[in-house]
Amino acid sequence: MNTPNETAITIRMHEADNVVIVANAGGLKAGTLLDEGTRLLDDVPLGHKVALCDIAAESTVVRYGEVIGYALEPIARGRWINESMVRMPDARLLSELSTEVRPAPELPPLQGYSFEGYRNADGTVGTKNVLALSTSVQCVAGVTDHVVRRIKQELLPRYPNVDDVVALNHSYGCGVAINAPAAIVPIRTLQNIARNPNFGGEVMVIGLGCEKLLPTRLIPEEQVLRLAENAAEATEIRPSPILSLQDEAFNGFGEMVDGILQLAEYHLEKLNRRTRETCPASELVVGMQCGGSDAFSGVTANPALGFAADLIVRAGGTVMFSEVTEVRDAIHLLTSRAKSPEVAQALIDQMDWYDNYLSLGQVDRSANTTPGNKKGGLSNIVEKALGSIIKSGTSAIVDVVEPGERVRKRGLNFAATPASDFICGTLQLAAGMNLQVFTTGRGTPYGLSMAPVIKVSTNKTLSRRWHDLIDLDAGRIATGEATIEDVGWELFHLILEVASGRQLVAADRLGLHNDLVLFNPAPVT
Amino acid sequence: MNTPNETAITIRMHEADNVVIVANAGGLKAGTLLDEGTRLLDDVPLGHKVALCDIAAESTVVRYGEVIGYALEPIARGRWINESMVRMPDARLLSELSTEVRPAPELPPLQGYSFEGYRNADGTVGTKNVLALSTSVQCVAGVTDHVVRRIKQELLPRYPNVDDVVALNHSYGCGVAINAPAAIVPIRTLQNIARNPNFGGEVMVIGLGCEKLLPTRLIPEEQVLRLAENAAEATEIRPSPILSLQDEAFNGFGEMVDGILQLAEYHLEKLNRRTRETCPASELVVGMQCGGSDAFSGVTANPALGFAADLIVRAGGTVMFSEVTEVRDAIHLLTSRAKSPEVAQALIDQMDWYDNYLSLGQVDRSANTTPGNKKGGLSNIVEKALGSIIKSGTSAIVDVVEPGERVRKRGLNFAATPASDFICGTLQLAAGMNLQVFTTGRGTPYGLSMAPVIKVSTNKTLSRRWHDLIDLDAGRIATGEATIEDVGWELFHLILEVASGRQLVAADRLGLHNDLVLFNPAPVT
Ligand SMILES: [Ca+2]
Ligand SMILES: [Ca+2]
Ligand SMILES: [Ca+2]
Ligand SMILES: [Ca+2]
Ligand SMILES: [Ca+2]
Repeated sequence: MNTPNETAITIRMHEADNVVIVANAGGLKAGTLLDEGTRLLDDVPLGHKVALCDIAAESTVVRYGEVIGYALEPIARGRWINESMVRMPDARLLSELSTEVRPAPELPPLQGYSFEGYRNADGTVGTKNVLALSTSVQCVAGVTDHVVRRIKQELLPRYPNVDDVVALNHSYGCGVAINAPAAIVPIRTLQNIARNPNFGGEVMVIGLGCEKLLPTRLIPEEQVLRLAENAAEATEIRPSPILSLQDEAFNGFGEMVDGILQLAEYHLEKLNRRTRETCPASELVVGMQCGGSDAFSGVTANPALGFAADLIVRAGGTVMFSEVTEVRDAIHLLTSRAKSPEVAQALIDQMDWYDNYLSLGQVDRSANTTPGNKKGGLSNIVEKALGSIIKSGTSAIVDVVEPGERVRKRGLNFAATPASDFICGTLQLAAGMNLQVFTTGRGTPYGLSMAPVIKVSTNKTLSRRWHDLIDLDAGRIATGEATIEDVGWELFHLILEVASGRQLVAADRLGLHNDLVLFNPAPVT
Repeated sequence: MNTPNETAITIRMHEADNVVIVANAGGLKAGTLLDEGTRLLDDVPLGHKVALCDIAAESTVVRYGEVIGYALEPIARGRWINESMVRMPDARLLSELSTEVRPAPELPPLQGYSFEGYRNADGTVGTKNVLALSTSVQCVAGVTDHVVRRIKQELLPRYPNVDDVVALNHSYGCGVAINAPAAIVPIRTLQNIARNPNFGGEVMVIGLGCEKLLPTRLIPEEQVLRLAENAAEATEIRPSPILSLQDEAFNGFGEMVDGILQLAEYHLEKLNRRTRETCPASELVVGMQCGGSDAFSGVTANPALGFAADLIVRAGGTVMFSEVTEVRDAIHLLTSRAKSPEVAQALIDQMDWYDNYLSLGQVDRSANTTPGNKKGGLSNIVEKALGSIIKSGTSAIVDVVEPGERVRKRGLNFAATPASDFICGTLQLAAGMNLQVFTTGRGTPYGLSMAPVIKVSTNKTLSRRWHDLIDLDAGRIATGEATIEDVGWELFHLILEVASGRQLVAADRLGLHNDLVLFNPAPVT
């Protein structure tokens, strides 16, 4: 708790708010007088809410100018409002939402920003040069892990322009209900991940040979087309990018591994010829996510990310925000931002799909919040959602990307994904993301080997403690050392540096990489 | 296809069968005369069915003495019956099943068999000595992978009695609906995996600190009790087995890793004191599974495994068969084998739960079969199920273990799991399995780092080609080189050798190990 002569720092998000949050690193003590005249009746931890006026039982608690709940008991001015004192509002009826739109006028274009990227034959641009071993079924993972180790040791040193070798292991492909309607989600996710710009169209697929998910479904169409073209022109003999372990050509494990190494070498040679070239910032496809959120997420890191998102959109680039359960309770603020009534309806449809999905499992969107969120000062999913959507910035929402689909339009997209960190990351990779920004308040050692992840802390306590795990500190916004615009610009510049390969993110420097996690709303068998 | 003077080898499972399967490695050519007088009208591939009499349209096709389907067209004697000619029977109504039981009389005890195992404080016996780093949330996996590499390089060489260090990574713990009714399944799975006998009660848990699944839920109760006892007796100061990355004590990644290494060293020291001692075969807890099945699975490997299962039961040990969707269509043959009407009802209840689970996803049990199964000669899930349950042998079913639960009774158990290979393996590990037997016809490079897996091939073609991946060839049964009893005894002896650490299974020799895959029938958020 603060020493008597420490100045109270509090943050109010909107003039209509009847609460502020405490920004002093050690919290504030009972008796402390706030600038606007309220005297604290309780000790209030960092990030937690204080009542600015007496709130009668059943009256509204307002933050971000929105009702985040109803007082379960009379709350006196100056009291610490913890989550047990607030009843969560009911979910807004989707059927009552309007699809009338009032999108923001186009933001002024931002010119002259570029990064050094790898331009691909299909027009996309990579920020890394990675050999990916896609897999059509879970059971080959032991073999691909083994082979990746061998490729890294024996082959990679000879291909200095290739950054990494990655097995796209997952738990799908067999033992699953592949004809269930919802199976489309994991299947197109795997199909589209193979097309991620960082793999340069040189993905190889390791299959077994008896799986339900046919390996041919995982090769990018372009790769098949190029294969045919090359054959016609007879300029090059391109081997099949698919290798099945049950192939009768392989006598034992040793021959399988040799076969994979040989195929890997072919693709490494191709990838090694890729070089970085100057590309406009409009080629950025940035995924945005938050995880381990606290009350500062919506005050510091997410607003700064929203500012950077606007910069990317102004530069002609593509940005995705996601996490359906963190959008559901702020959906009324988003539909009007859609480019067209069709996009507004698509937003509502995704909320509706998820409501049904959750209710089949006998839960609702309130299943989202974590103990960490609450310790961090977030009362419920409504408050969390309001802080989460701020990262979308202010521009018009041009399109809605369903789970596992590829992004189609430049500008701000809503990519509908679960909030679950690695599921969201996996789906954003499938959407074509070439860089991710991840904001965190509690701290998570998040990392992906397929695309760089910039981790932004929402508070200084975390960025100080995790000095080697956090890439950018947005906590300076709460202390007044920097503005949202300052940190937004810093982040934008950092994105260009990382996309150019000039700066390594913490996760890549430490080699912290998590596996893909597929979203499979269909049953297993 | 066979040369003209190759002798036709066919297999008939039951006197009531009107089909046989072809056992010649190259299949049989049209014109070949079978022993019993049928002349082939088509070329018939290995493992596929031949009609032994004219079968009228809508008449029954019978194998294993059971109706596996109805002819969709008239099928002449000698024709190859492929799956497109057979209509699958409807699922048996569960409500019409009887719970009357006629369990087999107790088999004669088998005495004098033992293995060299690691006896644990809780009475269980391990077959390996493994340091497990359990995890309470998916996001720590990048860190645990990093630390496991470091432990293996820096610490493990100093603890020669410890076989391996394994991170129990998974996709659960956060971003999930932890209060959904079905969440009990993944949660108790993780709880019980930490209690697997191969980890010697020395599991450590790496958590984040804000996850939904509290790390304290993952420590075996015995460990907590011992902790309290030790404290009371002041004989030893035992550190907390839980380490959270968000712990304020850790300044950055380097200190986290040091903290984990220090805790690992404490547990390695304990584990290093474990020694193998002679234990009766009654301490075996063997999980049985099939994957990549063909028509020989039910003829060679599974019957031999069934024979070995009976031997283990006779020796007082524990055996589990699993895979609900492969039991569903043979359930009427199993209920009567239950020890009591309550166990019969529990079997039916598990089928019913799975029927509902699949129908929520708009599929049914026929979603189980794979293209590989069909290429291997299996027409549908009914034929597959009849071949699958043979591995249960002949003894009484003493208990039904729900997904994620621990086995409670010695003898033959049905552990209700999906058929999906690694989900089944993960749930059998949670049930307390100390060794697994996996039969395969098409071939899969299956392996687990937590318990040895003996891979048995159903046919000689596979065991010859995958000479370094298959541990035992049951294909000799089809060619008449060995009997089911011969291979069953071989397998039993091999189980004892592997359990004693005297023989390495192929997967361990090659280091082929797949990750855990949790069964989570509840939604993600
Ligand atoms: Ca989030
Ligand atoms: Ca998230
Ligand atoms: Ca892994
Ligand atoms: Ca099976
Ligand atoms: Ca299986």
